[in-house]
Amino acid sequence: MCEANVYCIDKEGNEKLILEAVDKVIPMEEGFLLENIFSERKIIKAKIKEMALVEHRIVLQEE
Amino acid sequence: MCEANVYCIDKEGNEKLILEAVDKVIPMEEGFLLENIFSERKIIKAKIKEMALVEHRIVLQEE
Repeated sequence: MCEANVYCIDKEGNEKLILEAVDKVIPMEEGFLLENIFSERKIIKAKIKEMALVEHRIVLQEE
Repeated sequence: MCEANVYCIDKEGNEKLILEAVDKVIPMEEGFLLENIFSERKIIKAKIKEMALVEHRIVLQEE
């Protein structure tokens, strides 16, 4: 499966895992809606910093 | 491998394939830098519309 783990860097510069095995990433007015392969959802107010799909890694930056 | 194909919807609403087998997606001032597993690069002035990683699909919307 080709889902990714989504990490977020907070305002202090610390990176934390937000949601594993994310399939869908959809921009919304208030940030991004993340949905993983287990149908867990999170909305996070952040912008994209980088995506490295072969590493299964999406990094967001908190706004 | 878990790369994705990147599509873009243009201002007329037509979807076209921009770059296959994309690994890295990095936001830049002028849009997004895409880099695929063959080290091909494209910069596209667009925003993210949706990502469906299990389907290997990233859709951008031309701005």
